[in-house]
Amino acid sequence: MGQIQGFGGRGGVGARPALAVIDMTLGFTDPDSPLACDLETTVGEIARLLEAARGSGVPVVFTTVAYRESDKLTAAAFIDKIPALLNLEAGSRWAEIDPRLAPREEEPVLNKLFASGFFGTGLSSALTAAGVDTLLVTGASTSGCVRATVVDALQYGFRPVVPREAVGDRNPGAHEANLYDIEAKYGDVIPAGQALEYLRSLTAGER
Amino acid sequence: MGQIQGFGGRGGVGARPALAVIDMTLGFTDPDSPLACDLETTVGEIARLLEAARGSGVPVVFTTVAYRESDKLTAAAFIDKIPALLNLEAGSRWAEIDPRLAPREEEPVLNKLFASGFFGTGLSSALTAAGVDTLLVTGASTSGCVRATVVDALQYGFRPVVPREAVGDRNPGAHEANLYDIEAKYGDVIPAGQALEYLRSLTAGER
Amino acid sequence: MGQIQGFGGRGGVGARPALAVIDMTLGFTDPDSPLACDLETTVGEIARLLEAARGSGVPVVFTTVAYRESDKLTAAAFIDKIPALLNLEAGSRWAEIDPRLAPREEEPVLNKLFASGFFGTGLSSALTAAGVDTLLVTGASTSGCVRATVVDALQYGFRPVVPREAVGDRNPGAHEANLYDIEAKYGDVIPAGQALEYLRSLTAGER
Amino acid sequence: MGQIQGFGGRGGVGARPALAVIDMTLGFTDPDSPLACDLETTVGEIARLLEAARGSGVPVVFTTVAYRESDKLTAAAFIDKIPALLNLEAGSRWAEIDPRLAPREEEPVLNKLFASGFFGTGLSSALTAAGVDTLLVTGASTSGCVRATVVDALQYGFRPVVPREAVGDRNPGAHEANLYDIEAKYGDVIPAGQALEYLRSLTAGER
Repeated sequence: MGQIQGFGGRGGVGARPALAVIDMTLGFTDPDSPLACDLETTVGEIARLLEAARGSGVPVVFTTVAYRESDKLTAAAFIDKIPALLNLEAGSRWAEIDPRLAPREEEPVLNKLFASGFFGTGLSSALTAAGVDTLLVTGASTSGCVRATVVDALQYGFRPVVPREAVGDRNPGAHEANLYDIEAKYGDVIPAGQALEYLRSLTAGER
Repeated sequence: MGQIQGFGGRGGVGARPALAVIDMTLGFTDPDSPLACDLETTVGEIARLLEAARGSGVPVVFTTVAYRESDKLTAAAFIDKIPALLNLEAGSRWAEIDPRLAPREEEPVLNKLFASGFFGTGLSSALTAAGVDTLLVTGASTSGCVRATVVDALQYGFRPVVPREAVGDRNPGAHEANLYDIEAKYGDVIPAGQALEYLRSLTAGER
Repeated sequence: MGQIQGFGGRGGVGARPALAVIDMTLGFTDPDSPLACDLETTVGEIARLLEAARGSGVPVVFTTVAYRESDKLTAAAFIDKIPALLNLEAGSRWAEIDPRLAPREEEPVLNKLFASGFFGTGLSSALTAAGVDTLLVTGASTSGCVRATVVDALQYGFRPVVPREAVGDRNPGAHEANLYDIEAKYGDVIPAGQALEYLRSLTAGER
Repeated sequence: MGQIQGFGGRGGVGARPALAVIDMTLGFTDPDSPLACDLETTVGEIARLLEAARGSGVPVVFTTVAYRESDKLTAAAFIDKIPALLNLEAGSRWAEIDPRLAPREEEPVLNKLFASGFFGTGLSSALTAAGVDTLLVTGASTSGCVRATVVDALQYGFRPVVPREAVGDRNPGAHEANLYDIEAKYGDVIPAGQALEYLRSLTAGER
């Protein structure tokens, strides 16, 4: 699908990015999980971006999605649509971040009950307190939590950017369709290599 | 695309719906607008749903998207991606709701700067104060403000439902891809005729 | 201070309340905590309200305030104002709800980093999903998290009500001044006995 | 009331402030309004701060509070508590910013229905998009919308600061009690002269 006139402009990036890693839990990355996606490439790309972000002093934040017994009423409408979510029990293995992308102690891991990493979490406060202007959004799934997080990043006043190879989805068609919408309306979709260069170009000293 | 196992369950509807009409301004419905979509069918379907909602005492709320000079910095990242938004000047003809769907005095018309009808507006407060549990989301565009509003409706604790023929998009592929995602993950996509029956089945007296 | 004309009207209550218990953690209730308040009476009053709410099938939700290492940047401005907050370490004894008010498995315990129980938590979604229209706000402190939660309850479209003896504060003057503001502007301040009668008058069957 | 140990620390200011002018409408500043406060001194102090902010290129944002017919259900619980709010009709003289503090075209004027300037408005997005880290909160009333805006500023990740003489209230006791709470917990209360020096110390070029 080509771009429609007046859409798909360049959003660009700011000088103070953060890196968001959305829902890279074993519940999605482990082939044995009932909700598994093929995220092997994605994990590798995110690992490279994480290393670059940490090297440049760029803030990193993770999200997970998991449910306690007491969350089930709150998320009832979501669970009715995606009964498979019930596998994501808080405290279980499926709620842990993939160890290949292990968070450091100072990196927030925000648990959400819905799609957007911003909803019902302190994500916008964390980014604002850190002086961030740009959010690199990585993780899974492109057609779910990644897109919802991108839309909210824009709405909260940040510039969302999606490194293409660092997001994944169980459905290739939905993956492409959502990257199309993001690029047309919400944020730049760029090669992961370009995101890596951007992160490396920043230095902790200059920020 | 077929449904993936564990996704696409039935969300169902509650007993206290509201009807949301998203961005059915002349800026999108008028063929002369730089942002025009073909929304002739959509207008007709929404007009029928509006009549049924009003007949049953179901709350109705409209959104518009328009920008004052003083909003341009706030929405800068969105405008950079969709430069065509600059046509939607507050106070201009393009910011008016299509007169075929004219709001009544008691029906809120909430102006938003971004995609979701909930973001930066009092929409969730309006629905909660009205005791709503289900949100019928209609309007344009399916791949933009409709979908973002559906995702937020779910997140705020409402059950979103999309009457299929009452939403529209300038891009048929994006229209279908987004209905697929909504049906798989966020809310039921139902025939507009079924939504009409649902609204008519409620009576002001019983609510 | 008497009421000023045009302020201090009756907010009233709805038919579908929930009971919120704000920050009744050992960090505030235990005399050995660096942040201790005298909350002995408050604990007793809340215990009675909890019993009545549970007996009538009224939803109950708790909040806590606690900080992980990774929350300290997000909450830096709050911690700078109240350095004593650093005692409230996530996972520590001070972050546990007072066992005299122990939550049941199905009752959400929402951790917040700031004052309002609604901010950065799923509280409004939990209440909306439960069909709530009225929020009884109890706990501590009156001049901090209770008041902030009351203001947000109103903003989100709920009717806040404060059972007077079921909220407490380390500073008697601030306690009274904040009850005055709440009664003047945000929600009814009623005797705890009246709240108890209200909760008992509801039955699970009728809701 | 003296400070309690562990409370009332220094919040400090950042390098990128904005100036918020809360509800300085004729509905509050005009002695003929049913909701009038004595805000003559406050107007003068804010006028000086506005001039300094504009001189230094510091972003300025205004809020108003006003109700359309269609907002009355949304704000019903607030209006029940403060029936005098019904005087603040959208489009009326009482909804206009006091002309002594007239906004410039590029300065957002956000209409809110409740107490906090952040709730149901794009305020946090506007501040984030402008790269702000500190919010000077001025206007009226100290015990209502000013305090609620201060609490939310902190929660959204900004540092709130209140120039003491630039906020006002109809009730001197409530004014002092709320400044006490703000200073103890949420943000520094500083002399307006010090805020003026701070704003003048910044230059558009350096920001």
